[in-house]
Amino acid sequence: MIVCVCPNPALDLTYEIDVLTPGQTHRVGRVHRRAGGKATNTAAVLAALGEDVTLVAPLGGAAAEVFASDARRNGIRLLAVPISGTTRTSVAVVHGDDATVLNETGPSLTPREWEDLVGATQAAASGATAVVLAGSLPGLPPGADYRALVAAGGRERVLLDTSGEELRSALAERPAVVSPNLAEACGALEADLDTATAATALVAAGAAAAVVSNGADGAVGAAGDAVLAARVAAAVSGNPTGAGDALNAAIARGLATLPDGLPEVLRDAVATAAASVAMPTAGEIDLELRGTLLATAVVEEVRGAARADR
Amino acid sequence: MIVCVCPNPALDLTYEIDVLTPGQTHRVGRVHRRAGGKATNTAAVLAALGEDVTLVAPLGGAAAEVFASDARRNGIRLLAVPISGTTRTSVAVVHGDDATVLNETGPSLTPREWEDLVGATQAAASGATAVVLAGSLPGLPPGADYRALVAAGGRERVLLDTSGEELRSALAERPAVVSPNLAEACGALEADLDTATAATALVAAGAAAAVVSNGADGAVGAAGDAVLAARVAAAVSGNPTGAGDALNAAIARGLATLPDGLPEVLRDAVATAAASVAMPTAGEIDLELRGTLLATAVVEEVRGAARADR
Repeated sequence: MIVCVCPNPALDLTYEIDVLTPGQTHRVGRVHRRAGGKATNTAAVLAALGEDVTLVAPLGGAAAEVFASDARRNGIRLLAVPISGTTRTSVAVVHGDDATVLNETGPSLTPREWEDLVGATQAAASGATAVVLAGSLPGLPPGADYRALVAAGGRERVLLDTSGEELRSALAERPAVVSPNLAEACGALEADLDTATAATALVAAGAAAAVVSNGADGAVGAAGDAVLAARVAAAVSGNPTGAGDALNAAIARGLATLPDGLPEVLRDAVATAAASVAMPTAGEIDLELRGTLLATAVVEEVRGAARADR
Repeated sequence: MIVCVCPNPALDLTYEIDVLTPGQTHRVGRVHRRAGGKATNTAAVLAALGEDVTLVAPLGGAAAEVFASDARRNGIRLLAVPISGTTRTSVAVVHGDDATVLNETGPSLTPREWEDLVGATQAAASGATAVVLAGSLPGLPPGADYRALVAAGGRERVLLDTSGEELRSALAERPAVVSPNLAEACGALEADLDTATAATALVAAGAAAAVVSNGADGAVGAAGDAVLAARVAAAVSGNPTGAGDALNAAIARGLATLPDGLPEVLRDAVATAAASVAMPTAGEIDLELRGTLLATAVVEEVRGAARADR
């Protein structure tokens, strides 16, 4: 069983319109309304891949019902931590090839609600092969951050995908894998690095393994003595929102095989991420396309500068 | 007791941001999340004025909880007609002095759900002094329209505020009052009329009384032999969204006094509408400002062309 913890979930509204004209009233054509947030998207991809998934999320207000019904439909076990605040909404207005996004900040958790989230993570993680911690954090009491969730999840099975100070401080807790994209890795490391150097630097800073993604260029993984680059054979066009969350689903599935299984984990990660780009909303993958991409993905050893930095 | 029937309610999200840039991601500053739709806004104004109010609305999905909690907070009796569809969301992005609005179409009602809405309207209306029917209609079964709701509400106590074909066809049911704005009245009457002529034409077409509003210019009412124009003494600047819904609250309160009470109803209508413009969201009024505006509002007889058309 895999646990996904979504500390700052969102009700995702996707509106399809022709043109967005500021100052005007628009009638929305198609509406997609779904449970969102990075770890929520990862849970949906894992369920589509046939995994037994538990989603842990603090939820308050009207969004709780959408999370409950989406979890039911996707066969995901939902562990909702009730909060007094209102779970945020994120609105993505898709017009032509462009998207305009409006992100609410989200509620703050009380000390008691944060304790409940940490407790629920610990309870859910006890039987898990992997624990995915992903996304931004809501407003939290002083001293609360991702370190407590890494410890509650069990560092040896935690995959952490976050950015900035949250990622930097949590590295000291030695999570099993961290998986920022290149910009987030550089931000957390406060250095302008290439993908391979960023991955090895994250391992040097405390993570047992690191997978750093770089959009259509694929991803580089560092684990044990290996530094490997992976990419799909041909680029997939579509909506890249949620590609990182699909990548996390693949890493979580293979987490227990690391470091030896790094080549297969990376191959699966780039194929699953690319298979999500073909779908209109985050949290979905094209299963057939994933099969094709898996068979043709390229995984290569990275030589030189990257290793020298470790 | 006053009944407000909202056939196509919406969960209203108001987002305050600095600048809306299409194609970009925006962090939303302030968020207002409230039960909306024209008759829902009117119910909130009536409750603020101390009236005993029942709100009837078909509700499905996550919005139902927001309607329940808003009704509880405002002291409104909510008669929710459960539907299988999902109640729509409307997003208003307020940037500077401008607003960009995204309106979902809303769900369609099944024949059974429509029957339930008509039945709930009839049940609620039995003890009411006024029944407000307002806003657009959701998708409905063939043959279903506002006429059935006017009959269920009891035509002699119904205030109907809608537009287009819905208004035109319902006039034959002889509602007590109709209250379109000037553009809606001209649309329904398929003629380019001034405010007073529009009001008398609506009465000629079947309504027992009509109040036609024209933004900051105030409103003209026609009832019995009287045609009267009303306006506040000084314009109020702010957000005009919901001004028509506040106007309806005042008309509903005085509906039983018509036609004789037309002068006082119109005075209250323009004062209450203007007092809502001062508030940031629809469904709210500035009670103190309303008192000032009531005392200074101007009500005058309209002579000439308007009467000749009746």
